[in-house]
Amino acid sequence: MTTLYGYFRSSAAYRVRIALNLKGLAYDQVPVNLVKGEQRGDANLARHPQGLVPSLVTDDGLVLTQSLAICEYLDELHPRPALLPEAPAERARVRALAQLVACEIHPLNNLRVLKYLVHELKLDEEAKLGWYRHWVTGGFDALETMLSREAGSGDFCHGDTPTLADLCLVPQVFNAERFACDLSAYPRIRRIVANCRTLPAFQRAAPGAQPDAG
Amino acid sequence: MTTLYGYFRSSAAYRVRIALNLKGLAYDQVPVNLVKGEQRGDANLARHPQGLVPSLVTDDGLVLTQSLAICEYLDELHPRPALLPEAPAERARVRALAQLVACEIHPLNNLRVLKYLVHELKLDEEAKLGWYRHWVTGGFDALETMLSREAGSGDFCHGDTPTLADLCLVPQVFNAERFACDLSAYPRIRRIVANCRTLPAFQRAAPGAQPDAG
Repeated sequence: MTTLYGYFRSSAAYRVRIALNLKGLAYDQVPVNLVKGEQRGDANLARHPQGLVPSLVTDDGLVLTQSLAICEYLDELHPRPALLPEAPAERARVRALAQLVACEIHPLNNLRVLKYLVHELKLDEEAKLGWYRHWVTGGFDALETMLSREAGSGDFCHGDTPTLADLCLVPQVFNAERFACDLSAYPRIRRIVANCRTLPAFQRAAPGAQPDAG
Repeated sequence: MTTLYGYFRSSAAYRVRIALNLKGLAYDQVPVNLVKGEQRGDANLARHPQGLVPSLVTDDGLVLTQSLAICEYLDELHPRPALLPEAPAERARVRALAQLVACEIHPLNNLRVLKYLVHELKLDEEAKLGWYRHWVTGGFDALETMLSREAGSGDFCHGDTPTLADLCLVPQVFNAERFACDLSAYPRIRRIVANCRTLPAFQRAAPGAQPDAG
């Protein structure tokens, strides 16, 4: 059985759960508790030398890391429903939207970075929230502009079916809501996320629906 | 003519230059001076709503953003020499190594983040360097482990030809050297980078070889 080593609130694990669900693939979940520091334990480091989640271990023992790489692997092995369009220009657009979240917003706001801000740089709660919202706002401003002005957008980030871009967007919005970011300036983002949230694959991937949800 | 809007010291633009060179594609370069803030000017925002570089504008007017998306687009349109292996498991490994750099190290250390640390959080030079080196060290520790213990490694990150992973690694090492990071604990990384640097495609992509090099 395919096993996902993740954490209910990890955005990156959330992306992989959505992909697995959309593909209709069965998987076991093993929680790695990020708050307790289990990601830096020997068991997790053996799978994931960065001490992060998620890792996906396949039936035949292949250990995969990095959520976007895992999602593209799943898409290559199980092409339907597709997480990427067929035309190279459209694939590039979907990947760019996904990477806007995965390379420009999320890396600045994940737990290990927020911990560094508090423990090493001694930021207070307000400064930490300011940091968090600064990167979300900058990223979402750009994403809203791209989604609004580019012809490829539809009910989802690209067209009328979920793609890799939606897999990144929904967890990022969940995360932003947790930190009480004001999303009123992003009607297009909110509409797309609302559409995603009507789908069972996204619902079953939500943090609150996971076995380790606290 | 394909046009790359970049900046000589931008790691992300550097990745795209290497890809274009490896593919043997001709391109014009238009510098966007990040130090002068040109990335936030109207001309760049029209191409790249995030106010970043690089963007690639193709012959037929397609505007692409996000360096990894651009490199995969080039690889799909011009498959030889390949930037990714053929087997899905190997493609996943290369993408994971690339994303280790592009999602876990680089986003924390690029210019806009360092500026925020100095201007908003009032960090002094030592604290800024501490931040920079913390993320480089954590990322390179993991990368060195993965490159050393995984069978896929060769003269390059994966096998004996350059892939997307090397396109990310070489600019990250260049950047780390600029910030005087100690790389002595990373013999495998250093050997791979040395191999890359023997290739004209990498040499011609180096920051010092660009028209806007200061």
